[in-house]
Formats: sequence, structure tokens, C-alpha cells
Amino acid sequence: MMMTEANAPHVLRELRGGVLTLTLNRAEKFNPLSEEMLAALQTALDQAEADAGVRVVVLAAAGKAFCAGHDLKQMRASPSEDYYRKLFNQCSKLMLTIQQMPQPVIARVQGLATAAGCQLVSMCDLAVASTDAMFAVSGVNYGLFCSTPAVGLSRNIPRKQAMEMLLTGEFIDAETARERGLVNRVATPDEIDAEIAKLTASILAKPAAAIAIGKQLFYKQLETGIGAAYQLAGQTMACNMMDEAALEGVQAFIEKRAPAWKAQGEE
Amino acid sequence: MMMTEANAPHVLRELRGGVLTLTLNRAEKFNPLSEEMLAALQTALDQAEADAGVRVVVLAAAGKAFCAGHDLKQMRASPSEDYYRKLFNQCSKLMLTIQQMPQPVIARVQGLATAAGCQLVSMCDLAVASTDAMFAVSGVNYGLFCSTPAVGLSRNIPRKQAMEMLLTGEFIDAETARERGLVNRVATPDEIDAEIAKLTASILAKPAAAIAIGKQLFYKQLETGIGAAYQLAGQTMACNMMDEAALEGVQAFIEKRAPAWKAQGEE
Amino acid sequence: MMMTEANAPHVLRELRGGVLTLTLNRAEKFNPLSEEMLAALQTALDQAEADAGVRVVVLAAAGKAFCAGHDLKQMRASPSEDYYRKLFNQCSKLMLTIQQMPQPVIARVQGLATAAGCQLVSMCDLAVASTDAMFAVSGVNYGLFCSTPAVGLSRNIPRKQAMEMLLTGEFIDAETARERGLVNRVATPDEIDAEIAKLTASILAKPAAAIAIGKQLFYKQLETGIGAAYQLAGQTMACNMMDEAALEGVQAFIEKRAPAWKAQGEE
Repeated sequence: MMMTEANAPHVLRELRGGVLTLTLNRAEKFNPLSEEMLAALQTALDQAEADAGVRVVVLAAAGKAFCAGHDLKQMRASPSEDYYRKLFNQCSKLMLTIQQMPQPVIARVQGLATAAGCQLVSMCDLAVASTDAMFAVSGVNYGLFCSTPAVGLSRNIPRKQAMEMLLTGEFIDAETARERGLVNRVATPDEIDAEIAKLTASILAKPAAAIAIGKQLFYKQLETGIGAAYQLAGQTMACNMMDEAALEGVQAFIEKRAPAWKAQGEE
Repeated sequence: MMMTEANAPHVLRELRGGVLTLTLNRAEKFNPLSEEMLAALQTALDQAEADAGVRVVVLAAAGKAFCAGHDLKQMRASPSEDYYRKLFNQCSKLMLTIQQMPQPVIARVQGLATAAGCQLVSMCDLAVASTDAMFAVSGVNYGLFCSTPAVGLSRNIPRKQAMEMLLTGEFIDAETARERGLVNRVATPDEIDAEIAKLTASILAKPAAAIAIGKQLFYKQLETGIGAAYQLAGQTMACNMMDEAALEGVQAFIEKRAPAWKAQGEE
Repeated sequence: MMMTEANAPHVLRELRGGVLTLTLNRAEKFNPLSEEMLAALQTALDQAEADAGVRVVVLAAAGKAFCAGHDLKQMRASPSEDYYRKLFNQCSKLMLTIQQMPQPVIARVQGLATAAGCQLVSMCDLAVASTDAMFAVSGVNYGLFCSTPAVGLSRNIPRKQAMEMLLTGEFIDAETARERGLVNRVATPDEIDAEIAKLTASILAKPAAAIAIGKQLFYKQLETGIGAAYQLAGQTMACNMMDEAALEGVQAFIEKRAPAWKAQGEE
């Protein structure tokens, strides 16, 4: 008997060589962020966060589209402000988890990434888009301004460009998204996995502790004045430098050899 | 008898189908932001803010230039710090009104937009520039660093590029302004009104309440940390979703039909 | 007897017509920010800050590279957190001095600008890069995430692009740096000094007081909400306008003549 989509897991999980690929798995519906999808993704990220064997997360999606945002049918069925508050809290928690977890998260985007789907891209540390990717914050088209997506989007691209997308609901293509800062790289559908593999390989070659401490510092210092940012960053670097991996790495650099780091996960 | 410019209104006002066009009307002097111009524009915006029949504002200017900044002759005639404080307070209040009013404001820029004229563009939600538009914050050329324009400019374009404009007083053209984030679109003088009509039509097609709530949230969340931003945005979306227009819009989306919204202004 | 590099000054100092050129002078080692280099540069900037004869600072470097970051050999020789804290405090103080001093500082970048070398570029008010310039925040390659460079970098370029550089340690070229906002202009090695001369000439033509008051306001207002930013900026402009140079400058503008400013430094 073939497994139908309805009883398949919402998020597929594949760990290979430190790279955890999480795949949104409701292709037919364009992978909406239903309560179930949000819960499944939250669980997967929480597990990844605590798993030293996970060095980097690729957030992918099955089918033709990356993610079309919230599950509007499910939302419409519960017209209560209390329900919506809980739903958006659940969603915001997920978005912040991506930023707060120690491992880098890379969005792998094909087809549509709209509303909360676009938000998901904006909240990942890095994003690689297929040449066929299209981005919009289109809630305004049905009367629901993309306020939560605006949080991530306005921290990725210039404000007038963000405002235009939010007011008009119009799509931008992958190349425009790259120029403005929403994605890092654009590749053809045939080459997108190779492009992502370059990024994951580069991250895997670095010590996990340095990546974790650096990612945390990065977002923290963005929210402070520059004086406090330097305070935090200086402390972070002093700690980081005392790490065995950094002391060995710097020594290796001086001796013009490769660092003899323990394989990650053995630590 | 022909009306001379001196006794013509400082700001022309035309409301057509929900689109209010305000036209700075001192073409010969390049539409300087004199006390009178600031007062006339403030009054026009305050009226627009309170008028449910106004869905979007286009801020345009008569003649060859958009706006050459403050009225230097008028400023020079009152060399007192107290006078200048009041003048800049009046001007800053106007600039903040644009951002705080519920309707989107679109700058329509031809020719020169310099000093406070450039600031006006930076503070609008959207901006469309003619191919002949030129932008500068040139006060430094006569010894007056464009400090208030810097507030808007540095929130539109990257800081080194803003600093270069502020220190040198040099012009950038429309295409450069677009690449950096100061304007959304560039069109030939023949096509600029059609380009703006596309934006206003897109905004008119959305519910006023969603636009208003979203615009307010957008600027508010930009000034908080990301955690607080998500708090605000989540509450905003939950409220927005309970709006009749959103419930109908989402229902229509599910049923793959156009939403049956009341004509705007009837509400 | 030829002076060897070891006993040459760490920073060369040349003042010509108001333009102070400071040249990092450890070409063979790619001008690392050793304790001695940091101290020499701090002293030079502190002196410049207090010298009314200095109108603009060009931060240049001898040899093939601009600056390869910290002196890793020296750092590795003192593996104590206390030492590292002091070192990063010293370095952060230098970086903040560049931003806090009244004169504009322009980076003149050729060859490599890596780690704290890239940070130095990010903290200057303006930067001109040679076509052969390459930028990276590559500490992560040896296990030391570029946390302090992240502070400057993330205030120059979009966050996803900054994150990519920080996680991968990969280089971007001069043109990419320009597109993203890390440098203002790119010129061939033959033309870079002419390009910088245009910027310094433009700055020299303006009153020192206006530049100083404006630079200070610029960075201050970036760290506040927009309401407070306008408060600060309005006060700054009112003060600035009462300055003799501004009153004369505005008068000259009205009379369509060049301002009769006292030669700078005579003030």
C-alpha cells in the first residue's frame, strides 16, 4: 500500500555526515505551516539543537513550492482572536528557534515562498534559491497584512523594498531577492544541491563551538548600540580564543599546516 | 487675471478614486520647504489622515524639480537658534506624520530632490523617480550638514553610501538611488504616472484597515528587538485576522473567488 | 645603514594640506594589528583628533596587503583569557575612536583586508578599494569566529551576506564589496589615489565644524528610534546653522557666490 500524503510525516528528517536535512512534506498543498507542520518542525529543530551530531541544518521542501505560508483553511475554521494569538505565538517561537539554535540553518528554496514561507527564508541564517523561486508577502491580497513576515523581511532587505512587497503583495524573483539580501545564492534546479553542499562543506570544516558562539553573538550584537556590541564581541572572542580548537587552529595557521581538530561530534 | 505663483496655494490637492495627490506648488523656486509650505503640507496630511475617502497619498511637485530643501532665504533672514529649533521641529513633525499616518504615501520625484527634499523622499513609504531625478544632501556645500535628512536617508540606504552623500554633497542619479534603496522604481517622465498608477491601484485593491494596521506595525517593529517585534506583530496579525475583511478575504481565497469586500469608504 | 622593517615606525604619518595619511607599515607581515600596531595607530588617531590642522584622515597600508587582522603569532604566545580581553578591548577602542573622532576617516584598501583588517575598513566613514582588494572575515578558518569584525561588517552590509562571510570565511572581491555597501568606490591601483583625492578635496572644501557636528550626529542618531533621532538632528542643525560658516555659506548661496570662509585651521 502506498503511503498517502495525509498520513506521511509532516517533516522528513535525514542526517548525513553532520548535515541534517529537514523537508517540509506536504507537497500537494505547497507545504503550509499548519499547526501540525509547525509542531513537527519545532520538534525537529529542538532535537537538532540538542544533537551534537548535527552541524548544520538544511531546511528544504518537497514538491514544486517551498512553502505557501499559513494553512488558511485551518485558520479560517477557528475564527477566534485567542486561537490566532496562540497560532502566531507558535509560529514566532519557531522562527526565533531558527535564529537562536547553535547550528546554522540554510533555506533551500524552490518555487513559491509566500507569506510565512517567505518569512521562513528570511529567518534562516543563509538561503539558496532555485532560479524558479518566487517570493512574496501576499497576505494583504486577502486582507491579512503580513505583519509577522515583515519582522524577518525588514531585517533582510531595505525598508522601501520591504514595504513595496508588503503593500502590493507582488512577487520578486530569485535574482531580485539575491540583489536585495533575502537570499545568498541562486542556482538552477539541477545545481542547487551542489551549491548548498559547498556551503555545508565549508561550515563542516570549522569547529562547532566557534560557529555556535559566533552565531549567537551575531544576532545579539545586532540589537545593541555599537559600544555594547563591541563589549559583547570582545568577550566572545576572548572566550573563543581560549577554546582548544582555536588555540590549535591558530597554531596550525602559524605553522602553515592544517589544524589537527578532533572529528566533530567526538568532542 | 492670471493667478501669480505668489498667491497660489502652496499645496494643490486632488482626490480621485481614493488617491489623494498633493502637489508642492512653488515650481519657480523649486518648491522649497518654507514655513508656509511646511504648514500647508502639514494641514493637507492631517486632513488626509482623518479622511476615510483617502486610501493612498501621492506626494508630487510642480515644475522641473521635486524639492530643493528648506527656504534658505527665509532661514537666513531670522538668524536665531530659537527660530531654527522651531523650524526644524515643524519640519520633523511633518516628516514623522508621513510615517505615522495610516495611508501609504508615495513620493513622485522628478528633477532635483536635495537636502530636505531628499529627506522627504526618504520618509515616504514608497518612491517612484523619473529618470531625470537627482538626489543629494547638499547642505554641507554651504556649511550646513544635512543632519535631519540624514535620519531618513540612513534608514533607506547603507551607511557608507549615506555618509558619502552627506560629506561630499554630491548627486546620485535615479538608477543609483533605486539600487541603494532610496526609491522603489524608476520610470521615464512619460511613464512615471502610469508606474505610480500601478502602485496606487494595487493598494486600492486591498482593505484599508489591513494596510493601516500593517503600516503602523512595520515602523514600530523596526525599532525594537526581534523578540518584541514578533510579540507586536503576532498581536497585530491576530487582530487583523478577526477583521471582517480578512475573514472574507481568506474565505474567498479558500473558495478560489474574488473577495466580496465593501467598496472602501463605505465602511 | 638601511632601516629594517623591525625598527621602522609601525605607522607612518604624512600631513599635507589638511589630509593626514596614516600608513600601516609592516608590509612584509601584511600589516597585522599587533599590540604595537594598535598602540601606534591609537596614538596617531588621538593626535589627529586634537589637531585642527587635520581635516580628513586617509588610512592606508604599505605593501601588497591592506591588513591581515590580528598578529596571530603574538596572540598565540599569550594563551590567557585576561590577555585576550585586554587585546580586544584595545582593538575595540581603536575601532570606536575612528567613528568618534571629528574628522572623516577614509580607508585606502589594496590586496587583502581580512578579519580585523576587514573590520578596520568597515569602521571607517568611507572606503575606496583597489580593484585587486579582497575582503574576508576568515578567523573561522582557524577556529576563531570573527566576532568583533562582525560588529562593523553587519553595520555595513545586509545580514545574510555578512553571515555567509562569517560562516564560510570566503573572500569577496572589491566590486562585490561595493555593491553590498562595504566600500564606496573601486579604482585601479593606478587611479586609487586620484579617487581618494577627489573625496578629500570635496571634504576640505567644507567647513570643519559642520563636518564634525554632522559626523557625530550621524552615528548617534543611528542608534536611537526615529523620534529621538529627529530630536537630536533638529538640535544639531539649529546649532550648526548659528555657526558663522553656515550663516556665511547660506548667504553666499542666496547671492550665488562662493562662500568667503576663513581658510581651515586659521579658525
